[in-house]
Amino acid sequence: MITGEVVKAIGELDRLEVGLLHLFLQHTSASISLNENADPDVRQDLEMALDQICPESLPYVHTCEGPDDMPAHVKSSLVGADLTIPIRQGKLALGTWQGIYLFEHRDRGSARRIVATISGIERPA
Amino acid sequence: MITGEVVKAIGELDRLEVGLLHLFLQHTSASISLNENADPDVRQDLEMALDQICPESLPYVHTCEGPDDMPAHVKSSLVGADLTIPIRQGKLALGTWQGIYLFEHRDRGSARRIVATISGIERPA
Amino acid sequence: MITGEVVKAIGELDRLEVGLLHLFLQHTSASISLNENADPDVRQDLEMALDQICPESLPYVHTCEGPDDMPAHVKSSLVGADLTIPIRQGKLALGTWQGIYLFEHRDRGSARRIVATISGIERPA
Repeated sequence: MITGEVVKAIGELDRLEVGLLHLFLQHTSASISLNENADPDVRQDLEMALDQICPESLPYVHTCEGPDDMPAHVKSSLVGADLTIPIRQGKLALGTWQGIYLFEHRDRGSARRIVATISGIERPA
Repeated sequence: MITGEVVKAIGELDRLEVGLLHLFLQHTSASISLNENADPDVRQDLEMALDQICPESLPYVHTCEGPDDMPAHVKSSLVGADLTIPIRQGKLALGTWQGIYLFEHRDRGSARRIVATISGIERPA
Repeated sequence: MITGEVVKAIGELDRLEVGLLHLFLQHTSASISLNENADPDVRQDLEMALDQICPESLPYVHTCEGPDDMPAHVKSSLVGADLTIPIRQGKLALGTWQGIYLFEHRDRGSARRIVATISGIERPA
């Protein structure tokens, strides 16, 4: 869950009355998404379910980077690498239970880079 | 299918020459997407297919909210909770067969909240 | 992979310092996504994996347009028909390995239409 990190990194967030935050993950074997921010079991279950939906046992051709690489690419396209979240009165307009997830789909992930872009109308001074 | 409701709720739509409508569902067990707007069987088939892809029978740990809860979270990340649609000459630039779907992934869904944000250039008066 | 075609078609791209490119596919049996731009085997493996995840053998009701039609609709909602990519200093801010994919989910696809919208701040002259 990276909600806190994202909010911290976007200094201009609290200056916007109405706007949008766009997050873009520059990788093809990870993904970003929204999901339940409360119970840590959800994170584990999501990973298990994605492994079941998209197993390593499929007859992949592109296997040179290991058995977890191609499933990671498939999950990346299924979950997606970009996300847009509305901004209202200086805050992300997330639902009560929503948090921003960075899904690492490789067994051994490395550092991941997200490009953030905000747009909108400034709050009255 | 919520295309009509969305268009009705966004009063400023017809004032924009070129723009974007962003829809954001504030929930983690439902999702929004585009799909075929004609045959009602498609809606039923989509639900059946998502149930097959992401069955309740997986060995989930987070089961305290019922057997349909965790599959709903997985489907939510697979289909997604945000959607951006172009606006052209005061109208959503949807393809002929495209309609906006709100997927309810719980067996007993409650009211769902969507945050809409539009941006763009006004039409000449 | 349509990265080159997209960049070529968007003439104003190099005029933006910071911005967003929104791509919107006006179809319900194809999708757009980002994935690995190097090895052509990845493209083939993605198609194979989507066929396994969402097989034609499911008990669909909407079969009037052929056995590949309903799976195409499901894949379209799973992968998605819209995509937003950041623009930085006149270029798409894609990761090193990211390319824009147009997934054709029908066995015999026809021409597909994408609506592109850009927004942002112009580069200093």
